[in-house]
Amino acid sequence: MDALSRLADLIHERRGADPASSYTAKLLDEGVEKCAKKLGEEAVEAALAGLKGDRDHLTMEAADVFYHLLVLLEATDVGLDDVMAELDKRSGTSGLVEKASRKVP
Amino acid sequence: MDALSRLADLIHERRGADPASSYTAKLLDEGVEKCAKKLGEEAVEAALAGLKGDRDHLTMEAADVFYHLLVLLEATDVGLDDVMAELDKRSGTSGLVEKASRKVP
Amino acid sequence: MDALSRLADLIHERRGADPASSYTAKLLDEGVEKCAKKLGEEAVEAALAGLKGDRDHLTMEAADVFYHLLVLLEATDVGLDDVMAELDKRSGTSGLVEKASRKVP
Amino acid sequence: MDALSRLADLIHERRGADPASSYTAKLLDEGVEKCAKKLGEEAVEAALAGLKGDRDHLTMEAADVFYHLLVLLEATDVGLDDVMAELDKRSGTSGLVEKASRKVP
Repeated sequence: MDALSRLADLIHERRGADPASSYTAKLLDEGVEKCAKKLGEEAVEAALAGLKGDRDHLTMEAADVFYHLLVLLEATDVGLDDVMAELDKRSGTSGLVEKASRKVP
Repeated sequence: MDALSRLADLIHERRGADPASSYTAKLLDEGVEKCAKKLGEEAVEAALAGLKGDRDHLTMEAADVFYHLLVLLEATDVGLDDVMAELDKRSGTSGLVEKASRKVP
Repeated sequence: MDALSRLADLIHERRGADPASSYTAKLLDEGVEKCAKKLGEEAVEAALAGLKGDRDHLTMEAADVFYHLLVLLEATDVGLDDVMAELDKRSGTSGLVEKASRKVP
Repeated sequence: MDALSRLADLIHERRGADPASSYTAKLLDEGVEKCAKKLGEEAVEAALAGLKGDRDHLTMEAADVFYHLLVLLEATDVGLDDVMAELDKRSGTSGLVEKASRKVP
């Protein structure tokens, strides 16, 4: 199992745990708006670290983006498998990543 | 190989391809600021889709966040493996996800 | 009347205009999610322009943030006066800007 | 003088003050990346509050966006007057707000 799936499982297990003892449980307990906000924040930090060319910082911030995206998926009951299937649909067959371009200005 | 690693490889292959024929090549050709901006945009869209509770939309937006985060990593020569190792470090040993809480208010 | 109030009035007038002839009318017609998304996007662009130290670019992006924030206020029927009153409350009396710090990590 | 200009002046005065006694001085002391990050965060919060239709919350978050945008302008030595002149240029003459649409997808 890859690191992302392991993390998604761990986040799922923490749901309902004591918010005082787990940051993940605390986020989920605070609700989807909080989880959504954290994703936005971490993405901005990753974007700034990327622009700055600070690779060590970007590595940490990218991990934060992955983590908070998984928490948002958990908070809204969206399966990571569904997201990965969507990515495979776009990239699996040659050229399909490029279909993404149709939705992008 | 998992879907994310496959996509990272595909993005790496597209680097240097004709920007006119590949959206990925076009993003990388436009530079890191453009890639950083796209990550921020897609994260905001994912956050909004999550808050709205629109699961199908969030699935698509989450895929966009994954994709654009990988593009930013490629643009800055940060390896996905390093980010995954960071995630494993946080979640592999019991309770280590919770260390993340120390950086979060 | 200051530039911001003039712009807020103009945005208010455009509400209900033909979306085909006015970008403002088009945004408002597309709904609050679109307006919210645009604010997030423009703020990310302003943040990146600021970090880059590109002052001309930041001037343009800051104008975009002001504009899209006003559009979001219009879309949600929040008065600019109320926001300005909140700012005055924070800054009018000595030290009150500093109260903001209590909400910030 | 309008509330925004008053606030910009106050922020300018705080520059160089003791970071321990002023949140504004602390932000400016931490540097432009911190100021840029805060703008991005607050815009995401405003976007979410807007989508939720929580007008009181949006009023507060919009004030935060204004404040942190002014701090970023101060941190980068961009004058509020220049941004307002840009807004006037777009809105002053009939239809010029619409020119903005040309840059927007």
